[in-house]
Amino acid sequence: MTAFRALWDELATLGRDRGTGGYLRYAYSPAERACRDWFAAQAAARDLPVEADGNGNLFAWWGDPAAGDAVLTGSHFDSVPHGGAYDGPLGIVSAFLAVDALRARGHRPARPVAVAAFVEEEGARFGVPCLGSRLLTGAVDADAAGALRDADGVSFAQAHGGAPAGARPDLLARFGTAVELHVEQGRGLAEVGAAVGVGTAIWPHGRWRVTLTGEPNHAGTTAMADRRDPMLTAAFLVLAANKQARLRAARATVGRVQVRPNATNAIPERVTAWLDARAADTATLTALVEGLTAQVAERAVRDGTEVGWAAESVTAEVGFDPALAARLAALLDGAPLLPTAAGHDAGVLSAHLPTAMLFVRNHTGVSHSPAEHADDADCVAGVDALASVLAGLT
Amino acid sequence: MTAFRALWDELATLGRDRGTGGYLRYAYSPAERACRDWFAAQAAARDLPVEADGNGNLFAWWGDPAAGDAVLTGSHFDSVPHGGAYDGPLGIVSAFLAVDALRARGHRPARPVAVAAFVEEEGARFGVPCLGSRLLTGAVDADAAGALRDADGVSFAQAHGGAPAGARPDLLARFGTAVELHVEQGRGLAEVGAAVGVGTAIWPHGRWRVTLTGEPNHAGTTAMADRRDPMLTAAFLVLAANKQARLRAARATVGRVQVRPNATNAIPERVTAWLDARAADTATLTALVEGLTAQVAERAVRDGTEVGWAAESVTAEVGFDPALAARLAALLDGAPLLPTAAGHDAGVLSAHLPTAMLFVRNHTGVSHSPAEHADDADCVAGVDALASVLAGLT
Repeated sequence: MTAFRALWDELATLGRDRGTGGYLRYAYSPAERACRDWFAAQAAARDLPVEADGNGNLFAWWGDPAAGDAVLTGSHFDSVPHGGAYDGPLGIVSAFLAVDALRARGHRPARPVAVAAFVEEEGARFGVPCLGSRLLTGAVDADAAGALRDADGVSFAQAHGGAPAGARPDLLARFGTAVELHVEQGRGLAEVGAAVGVGTAIWPHGRWRVTLTGEPNHAGTTAMADRRDPMLTAAFLVLAANKQARLRAARATVGRVQVRPNATNAIPERVTAWLDARAADTATLTALVEGLTAQVAERAVRDGTEVGWAAESVTAEVGFDPALAARLAALLDGAPLLPTAAGHDAGVLSAHLPTAMLFVRNHTGVSHSPAEHADDADCVAGVDALASVLAGLT
Repeated sequence: MTAFRALWDELATLGRDRGTGGYLRYAYSPAERACRDWFAAQAAARDLPVEADGNGNLFAWWGDPAAGDAVLTGSHFDSVPHGGAYDGPLGIVSAFLAVDALRARGHRPARPVAVAAFVEEEGARFGVPCLGSRLLTGAVDADAAGALRDADGVSFAQAHGGAPAGARPDLLARFGTAVELHVEQGRGLAEVGAAVGVGTAIWPHGRWRVTLTGEPNHAGTTAMADRRDPMLTAAFLVLAANKQARLRAARATVGRVQVRPNATNAIPERVTAWLDARAADTATLTALVEGLTAQVAERAVRDGTEVGWAAESVTAEVGFDPALAARLAALLDGAPLLPTAAGHDAGVLSAHLPTAMLFVRNHTGVSHSPAEHADDADCVAGVDALASVLAGLT
């Protein structure tokens, strides 16, 4: 058994749903807390002191945390509902294994290394992705973040055990470089036949909550002409978003819907639909959302419904530091460069320090799904690559 | 204060949601049990012994339960989620008040009268409407009904406190006539300016659970062309159902949807949508559902999704006893006759004994909504009409 498989198996059962085989590791859920406990145990076993930033993010330090110019690596534990095993945890497990590998080689880093576990990267519980890194960097207001509530009405502050600390420029200033390793969420590496690649950019992307309000009524007795049915407007939004994305070579998805009252024989009062949209550049994304907004407004007039749009999070295009990416590719013997349409904490960090990403091949490209998979050999190659990068940087 | 208002107010707070003002009176919920307790107390106060049929239905007897040829009246307490106050309870309150009115007049009925409270008429908890009357009459299998589960996995048998008794031909044989009073769920009476009308028929109607299965994946990184997104097929179903209903002067609604995993940044694995469809005759309803099935199947091929249809309940056209309806209209000085597109326990009973319905005017026609309303004066007219009918029949 490889060192990777041995460590990987320790996480395998935490938060795994026996029905789907997917993971339910929402931020601060018992499952995610179990992952945090595992993180603390792994750090302790390696003599890496753990620092909490007051926002829910953890940092296990190899070297003097006060030395400055540290290299930040790691990722997140939390998952989408019934998500895959790799998205997030692979970056943390690989970081611990890379430290082990460097120590085994007798490497003595000239710069400290911090293995990070960020909180609520997926936004699956409180609605804002990369919440931990946004808090750390001040990209989100601490009071606003603390007041975010999950589906049961529990606030982030309650789950966190107090108000989040918010921006920590003192901590951020101690990092000189960030490198996040992540399973690829597409088939880019599979298509070029490489186990590991270097990220160049993150597409601009955002989430919009679209609230469609009509008039609740009896599904049997209300004449079709007398209806104000928000489900119709929601259905139009779903199909129009798909069409707009196809026309613009972008991505648009309605993956989450809430219906009130959600009864078979009742015309809904309200349908809330969440739009996830992404594009290669900001102009395309803006045009997509604006076009869709106009189309849905027009349809709502026909349906007699009202439409409210709220941007829950919009992340500008991220170009990772080109010099750093080039250096990583060189350290990895010409590993391929590729962009991604998925958001990451590395994208948030890149506004503050030179940041890079490493991607590990995913043969099917499937992600955010129980079927998400990376071969063990590719994961081992990812650990080797991260170790080489850390060795080169430190 | 009228006797109606005094009795009506006793129910007003039971199961009422302060937020919407609507009712959450699911079968065997604490709120519906409180209504049952109220029913027992009302029966006791009037010296009407209560008989339970072992299926969850209650009967308060005025006169000898064993005499035979009884007149069954009453309705149900349970509601759709955030339903109105009148749908169901108006028939029970009016029945008690009609008994009071007849006693006050010194009427001595030649036939016994039973005030009924049927269980799970809406099907909002266990999915099958008119479950109580279907059990009583044997229209649903007792084992199958007992195994029906609510959203939390609780079975009807568990909620009921044991396996339901199933068909009770012995009890059914004691009834000679049934008359259910109900708030109208349309504007038929408002349009003709009458406070009370007599039901002639119930449109054939049904509920179909449509399961759309695709492939879960990442909403950001999965190319549009690589998707198998069941939300698209569900959206098509919603819009096609609406169009089919308009073209056929029928009714079709998708008011309930469940999405798995229901995450903003995940293409769903599965969307389950419930179709409620009704039409003036069986041929039209069949053509509507068959047409829709073909259209959705075609769309699913394009979306790369799979479609499963399951009929949860299909109720044939009900024509109430024409002689009984004519007699009621005559007893009520020529009250208007009208059909309804809503299902009722009376529709189930009508297969076994002469059955009629009385409707009370609803000025907006709104139903299954917190805004459902009938004026007090019209409710009082309903009580008077039911008393006149019971006096005439007994």
